[in-house]
Amino acid sequence: MNEPIRLAVSTVILALHPDPETGALVLRTPLVRRQREPFLDSWALPGGWVHPDESLEASAATSLLDTTGVRPRYLEQLYAFGDVDRAPSRVVSIVYWALVGGRETIAVPDDFNVRWFRVDDRPRLAFDHDRILEYALWRLRNKVSYSRIAQGFLPERFTLAELRAAHEAVLGRPLDPANFRRQIAGTDQVLPTDAMSTGGRHRPARLYRTNPALGFADNGPLSPR
Amino acid sequence: MNEPIRLAVSTVILALHPDPETGALVLRTPLVRRQREPFLDSWALPGGWVHPDESLEASAATSLLDTTGVRPRYLEQLYAFGDVDRAPSRVVSIVYWALVGGRETIAVPDDFNVRWFRVDDRPRLAFDHDRILEYALWRLRNKVSYSRIAQGFLPERFTLAELRAAHEAVLGRPLDPANFRRQIAGTDQVLPTDAMSTGGRHRPARLYRTNPALGFADNGPLSPR
Repeated sequence: MNEPIRLAVSTVILALHPDPETGALVLRTPLVRRQREPFLDSWALPGGWVHPDESLEASAATSLLDTTGVRPRYLEQLYAFGDVDRAPSRVVSIVYWALVGGRETIAVPDDFNVRWFRVDDRPRLAFDHDRILEYALWRLRNKVSYSRIAQGFLPERFTLAELRAAHEAVLGRPLDPANFRRQIAGTDQVLPTDAMSTGGRHRPARLYRTNPALGFADNGPLSPR
Repeated sequence: MNEPIRLAVSTVILALHPDPETGALVLRTPLVRRQREPFLDSWALPGGWVHPDESLEASAATSLLDTTGVRPRYLEQLYAFGDVDRAPSRVVSIVYWALVGGRETIAVPDDFNVRWFRVDDRPRLAFDHDRILEYALWRLRNKVSYSRIAQGFLPERFTLAELRAAHEAVLGRPLDPANFRRQIAGTDQVLPTDAMSTGGRHRPARLYRTNPALGFADNGPLSPR
């Protein structure tokens, strides 16, 4: 019992990618194949040990970049997982999560040991990482109902149809377009721009941008004050 | 840099107590006087080290009971604080918080080394504990607007006036009684009972109880599923 508790960080990265066949947005997450026991060859959340001279958030960002090449605009702390039996030795994992938009994932090719999986069609993960991922998804679904977090998936300017598609992909169900438009219009979540969307099969639609006066919901005590 | 990172737990306990002079509810929190350096004699949040054979939540509950005698009905994880320079050696603190009702605090006398302070009239705390407490208060104020968390302060049955007083004490501002009643009636947060309040200076009012089908907002992945 004198073995010290070891401290790790893991990250849940969620992105909306269009399905190559249907074009519908689907939630995907990058996973890393384990190179050692336990759970050799199983897929796991990206992560690593906390370095003594790095903050938790910096450790999470560094291990994420090293294992997957992903560099999100921000990381939010999700939860600290510390059950006694979650690993062969005692490991407490501080888990961070982030939503990433198109630009942050574009340069990340699939790799033998790093792969983006659909969250609803993934292998069984190492350790308690399935539970961690499910919790992140639950938090995300909860948060889209009271915050502008879904905008974290979108580029700087977007149409209301694109914003609705992001909500639908997170919630896993279709939303009524007119109701959605009314609900969004009743908040200060988005601001209209002077620009219209061009190209594509659809007729031009107003482009909106996020309201910079609002945060992406609770980003923890580390957010700028 | 080979010194291991040490893992601690701390707890922010919040209770609503009537002000002895005005009778108005005020938010109070128990603090513990430090018996050693650093910050000898300063007040700090209750806490202790994580034991290798205890879960984080059990460590938090045990250290809270040992230092203050408080045994809340539940503890919710607040945040993991891990800045490199937050203590002379590297310490990561997993912080839990709880709201406690009258019954859970009644048996806790003030003590030379344990004292309940008004959160808005407290000494400067040790380490980064002021920042932690401020974050807990920010989260609480945020949560009362979209969850039934304020009911955690109340006994099993309560009047709508008592529920409003709890909201007012958390938010630090008066709420319009008719508006409040309408807002609560529009949700399934509370269920009416057949009983009426008796005694006191006020005329009898309907007693309500919490809706057991709803959780106290996000209680983390540890909540019963």
